[in-house]
Amino acid sequence: MKRIGILTGGGDCPGLNAVIRGVVKGAVIQRGWEVIGIEDGFDGLLDRGKCRLLTLDDVRGILPRGGTILGSTNRGNPFSFPIEKDGKTVFIDISDQVVGTLKELGVEALVVVGGDGSLKIAQELIRKGVPIVAVPKTIDNDLMETDVTFGYNTALETATDALDKLHSTAESHHRVMILEVMGRYAGWIALESGIAGGADVILIPEIPFEIKRICRAVDDRRRRGRRFSIIVAAEGAFPRGGERVVRKKAEAAHQIERLGGIGEYVAREIGTCLDMDTRVTVLGHLQRGGSPTTFDRCLGSRFGIKALELIEKGAFGQMVCLKGRDIRSAPIEKAVRKLKLVNPGGDMVRAAEELGIMLGR
Amino acid sequence: MKRIGILTGGGDCPGLNAVIRGVVKGAVIQRGWEVIGIEDGFDGLLDRGKCRLLTLDDVRGILPRGGTILGSTNRGNPFSFPIEKDGKTVFIDISDQVVGTLKELGVEALVVVGGDGSLKIAQELIRKGVPIVAVPKTIDNDLMETDVTFGYNTALETATDALDKLHSTAESHHRVMILEVMGRYAGWIALESGIAGGADVILIPEIPFEIKRICRAVDDRRRRGRRFSIIVAAEGAFPRGGERVVRKKAEAAHQIERLGGIGEYVAREIGTCLDMDTRVTVLGHLQRGGSPTTFDRCLGSRFGIKALELIEKGAFGQMVCLKGRDIRSAPIEKAVRKLKLVNPGGDMVRAAEELGIMLGR
Amino acid sequence: MKRIGILTGGGDCPGLNAVIRGVVKGAVIQRGWEVIGIEDGFDGLLDRGKCRLLTLDDVRGILPRGGTILGSTNRGNPFSFPIEKDGKTVFIDISDQVVGTLKELGVEALVVVGGDGSLKIAQELIRKGVPIVAVPKTIDNDLMETDVTFGYNTALETATDALDKLHSTAESHHRVMILEVMGRYAGWIALESGIAGGADVILIPEIPFEIKRICRAVDDRRRRGRRFSIIVAAEGAFPRGGERVVRKKAEAAHQIERLGGIGEYVAREIGTCLDMDTRVTVLGHLQRGGSPTTFDRCLGSRFGIKALELIEKGAFGQMVCLKGRDIRSAPIEKAVRKLKLVNPGGDMVRAAEELGIMLGR
Amino acid sequence: MKRIGILTGGGDCPGLNAVIRGVVKGAVIQRGWEVIGIEDGFDGLLDRGKCRLLTLDDVRGILPRGGTILGSTNRGNPFSFPIEKDGKTVFIDISDQVVGTLKELGVEALVVVGGDGSLKIAQELIRKGVPIVAVPKTIDNDLMETDVTFGYNTALETATDALDKLHSTAESHHRVMILEVMGRYAGWIALESGIAGGADVILIPEIPFEIKRICRAVDDRRRRGRRFSIIVAAEGAFPRGGERVVRKKAEAAHQIERLGGIGEYVAREIGTCLDMDTRVTVLGHLQRGGSPTTFDRCLGSRFGIKALELIEKGAFGQMVCLKGRDIRSAPIEKAVRKLKLVNPGGDMVRAAEELGIMLGR
Repeated sequence: MKRIGILTGGGDCPGLNAVIRGVVKGAVIQRGWEVIGIEDGFDGLLDRGKCRLLTLDDVRGILPRGGTILGSTNRGNPFSFPIEKDGKTVFIDISDQVVGTLKELGVEALVVVGGDGSLKIAQELIRKGVPIVAVPKTIDNDLMETDVTFGYNTALETATDALDKLHSTAESHHRVMILEVMGRYAGWIALESGIAGGADVILIPEIPFEIKRICRAVDDRRRRGRRFSIIVAAEGAFPRGGERVVRKKAEAAHQIERLGGIGEYVAREIGTCLDMDTRVTVLGHLQRGGSPTTFDRCLGSRFGIKALELIEKGAFGQMVCLKGRDIRSAPIEKAVRKLKLVNPGGDMVRAAEELGIMLGR
Repeated sequence: MKRIGILTGGGDCPGLNAVIRGVVKGAVIQRGWEVIGIEDGFDGLLDRGKCRLLTLDDVRGILPRGGTILGSTNRGNPFSFPIEKDGKTVFIDISDQVVGTLKELGVEALVVVGGDGSLKIAQELIRKGVPIVAVPKTIDNDLMETDVTFGYNTALETATDALDKLHSTAESHHRVMILEVMGRYAGWIALESGIAGGADVILIPEIPFEIKRICRAVDDRRRRGRRFSIIVAAEGAFPRGGERVVRKKAEAAHQIERLGGIGEYVAREIGTCLDMDTRVTVLGHLQRGGSPTTFDRCLGSRFGIKALELIEKGAFGQMVCLKGRDIRSAPIEKAVRKLKLVNPGGDMVRAAEELGIMLGR
Repeated sequence: MKRIGILTGGGDCPGLNAVIRGVVKGAVIQRGWEVIGIEDGFDGLLDRGKCRLLTLDDVRGILPRGGTILGSTNRGNPFSFPIEKDGKTVFIDISDQVVGTLKELGVEALVVVGGDGSLKIAQELIRKGVPIVAVPKTIDNDLMETDVTFGYNTALETATDALDKLHSTAESHHRVMILEVMGRYAGWIALESGIAGGADVILIPEIPFEIKRICRAVDDRRRRGRRFSIIVAAEGAFPRGGERVVRKKAEAAHQIERLGGIGEYVAREIGTCLDMDTRVTVLGHLQRGGSPTTFDRCLGSRFGIKALELIEKGAFGQMVCLKGRDIRSAPIEKAVRKLKLVNPGGDMVRAAEELGIMLGR
Repeated sequence: MKRIGILTGGGDCPGLNAVIRGVVKGAVIQRGWEVIGIEDGFDGLLDRGKCRLLTLDDVRGILPRGGTILGSTNRGNPFSFPIEKDGKTVFIDISDQVVGTLKELGVEALVVVGGDGSLKIAQELIRKGVPIVAVPKTIDNDLMETDVTFGYNTALETATDALDKLHSTAESHHRVMILEVMGRYAGWIALESGIAGGADVILIPEIPFEIKRICRAVDDRRRRGRRFSIIVAAEGAFPRGGERVVRKKAEAAHQIERLGGIGEYVAREIGTCLDMDTRVTVLGHLQRGGSPTTFDRCLGSRFGIKALELIEKGAFGQMVCLKGRDIRSAPIEKAVRKLKLVNPGGDMVRAAEELGIMLGR
């Protein structure tokens, strides 16, 4: 009998439960394997009490539910784990403990469901000999080597639903409504929900914007008798200036903090130059919740099954992915090398601009 | 031939279009009357260009749409209208102009769809001889003399949907999620969506809360192994202290400003006393938008028809209302005398507390 | 320590889980009582294996879920229970067994959540000395003594959502779309969803229709350039003729069978007299499913808590109910004496007709 | 100034309005072209009164709306158009009239939005010299040369939502619930919604089923204590037997008629061999309606813009399509040569079977 493990790392994402269910059903029913569920991401491997056998009963009824039944708080990278020492936080390598726990549990292969951060940890563990296959997870859809990741489709529905709701209020009250959505480095959510929600302005990190152009676009609409405007801004969008396009976490966080939230920044600037009533809505965590869409449930399920097939083949170090309509696999290292960003010259940006949407350039 | 007018005042509310459609259909098809739609609330009566004949074509397809096709920005109370004079804002009485416009238009009766503010203006106009019937409108459901108002049911769905979404994230990440919903004076939305969304703590303006009790409730859950908590707070909720229960707009606004937003206030306090991860989501305008629920569409339609019946009877000064399952009417002056607040000793509060929900007292 | 029982009888209804959760939470947390959950309605009292202690864990997370965790198949009335004897079905009284099981279980009070049928059984058990309080349950909203029952609001959303969807197809293809909804004796769902969904014709059991009037209404629309029509029909609606208005189950069932489904009947007749393309959609069980709306979750929760209060007071034979905004109680016998039907002269029917909707009379 | 035409043919599909809006916005704003909207598919080219200039006002607010503002009834193939002659229907070629109308209107290029049928007509018109570019439209997602078509994603949501609703009723009542969804030749909707909705059995046209295997699967579940089962059947699914896999319209229609509806057929058979309570729900037209999902609105918009780019390039005879994340084009003739069917050996079917879903083989 074979025994495998599964953990989910990083932020919440609709479809995680579909992956877990897929792995458990495919392992137990078809292969007669056992599945150990590891709670709270890699943290769970530091505490045997957080590792438990997952049965078919455990995964019953979880398909329509958001979140993850395993929890996904990975506070610490086991290669640089924060501990308190003499009143200070120091970082130590406790990866041997992680490897040890897996051995003790008799786990012969580990399925890591995670984003950029979790996959990089997975890579280092692979170098230490842990047999890992990966399932990509990012609500922002910014991972390379896969057309799309689960959770993204559900997040789009939440964002577009918000835009539909803001439309009626904007129309009735002649306001500029600004919706801030997720996307620290990649503007996919802002761009796709903005096109679908009939936004007038879309701001994404890949295209630093000129605030004057935005004000002018809003003003033009007003002059044409359209007394409201809808702006969608990815949280990582920023004004053109001395800044370079950010690619690193620290820089983006700094940028966002400096502006006090991109939504508020844009509202202030428009309020200053146009004397129009503005309102900001920050969608935040609502985008990570909710029952997954059909697409996300199905994709998560297929990813889970494919992970088992990779284990059977011994294809460790591989990540499952979607190419067109098919599930395939790709090396984890290729997936984490860089982020999948919106192409400012690609057809989706071009479509947005041809629809009359201002992207701030 | 009879000619009537209709205007919608104050904040956006799902179901407004159902009222307008009901009035137009009932007037045109059944009675052969003409309906003048007045844009932007009472403001529209200062500008003949904002008054136009509403036809059956104008109201086609608007039933499922949020917002109001008439716009609802009433910037100014015509009895105390702000104008710029010598660089300062002064307030003058321009109500004669409003009365004059109605006469010029040949409007024999006016339907005012509005909340507290608009209904008080309506009362004063009635005293000046304008034949008005009212349709109550408040998303907070805080108007007396009617069991419920349209828009409230839709807002509840938006709030509960947000709670359902936050639940999955809270569970996966072991966090305290705080949802700030509408309700400056009345906590109906927080209370009813909180019960429906499985909240652990509900804060409403009618029950000033003790922050220590809330922290203890969250901590108790953590000790029982429930590592997350969900808090719903009405925007007008406030901590017990020297403050009296606020009843006036200015006081509530002051209170809210002082705390920097009730959601943020509670998050700070919990962060301080419990060292738990907290996240605040402010629903804001999303609660005013969206396609109205069946209940709100039907109630709005019935209100519109009832308004016509009141006009036929010459029952000016009356407001349509819902009592049990029936549409009735009541004097506007009784409706605006005080707000319909949550009864801290009533069965809904009692039910919440018996379900184990902490209300902060 | 007190021990109570709870069972859910009859058809599925969104909000049942809210009642169960309310009863368990209010009993366990506030009162220290035990709650025995009885599976599959009264059937569960014939089989000790179907009676189990409900804990707080059992009711965790069930609030947003449709259906009932207790099952609700009551095949047999214990006062006239079907058994096979000599190849034939005979009906015997096994109510003593039911009473016996309750005694053995030490159940001191029983909460019966059910509709017309279950409540009548409850009444007979009360006569045999069983201390019962009732919670009304009918998706059709046809129980007397309560303004509304949970599940009805959710069913309305399903029906109106279907109408919104059919509208787009009807408009694009110039068709007569017929939606058959629930309502064997009472037309509430058809009437309220029909008003909200912008139906052109609504057929309810309370108003026997003349098919010619319907054809004429559809034809009139066509002549006015509106090339589609939407018809909502309650399953128990029937054409005017020799028939009396049915009030009894058997008659309604006969009626429905005779017509081969009211939707198909109307489609055939319109196809015959107008030569227009028609399509029938039978919503069926979809109306009983889905996550309950805020209103239904909250009402179910309040009903559950109120049932406990009735038990505390010893108010057996009473049923919880909603009057206006308040939870009250009323004698079960008054609730089951007759059905709460749509008043053909009431304001909701009048509103429908004034909106230009044809009711077939 | 350039003038182009656009028509939508065949069945309704959420996202059609997004295409129309994209074409009009991209043509008018960016290129200064005029767009003639042709009503009711190719039929509109037989009647000048059905051809009208589309302005930006015409496409305002249509993005969230299902259906098509142009209507899509194409009753007749202009190359074989049905007319009444001597009391009989004969078919004549009136394609010259179609070509003539386009010339009269000064239409320099035509955008045909349609499925298999409309695209074949488009091909024949291209042979007659009409400059056409195509936008693929099929709710069944069975067109070759594109990963996916708009409308399909929305239909999936409707189908999965129905499955979620049926689940609660099935669980509460211990029933076999059968959902019949669209898909005459291709089982994509059944397969993908079935995986997402947690179906136990999925029947698709590509895999003729053995009814005995289905009964055994349902019975196995019952023996394992799972007293309900959910079956999703594509309308074109059929039992294994003498029949070949159907590929032609007439054969499928014959098959469906012979069985009296696949849902009813399966219900009868299960009722016969298992003595279980079964219920059939036919989703029908509900799948074609509703507000399009984000994905469908965005895909439709991008398709519309791409069609304009093809016209600019003179790439007539081409159809826009989606490949991975990119919008591309392919020859219409390749798209209509055969249908894109589910691969019985592909990863989606394999995933379904590994999840424990019975596909009847």
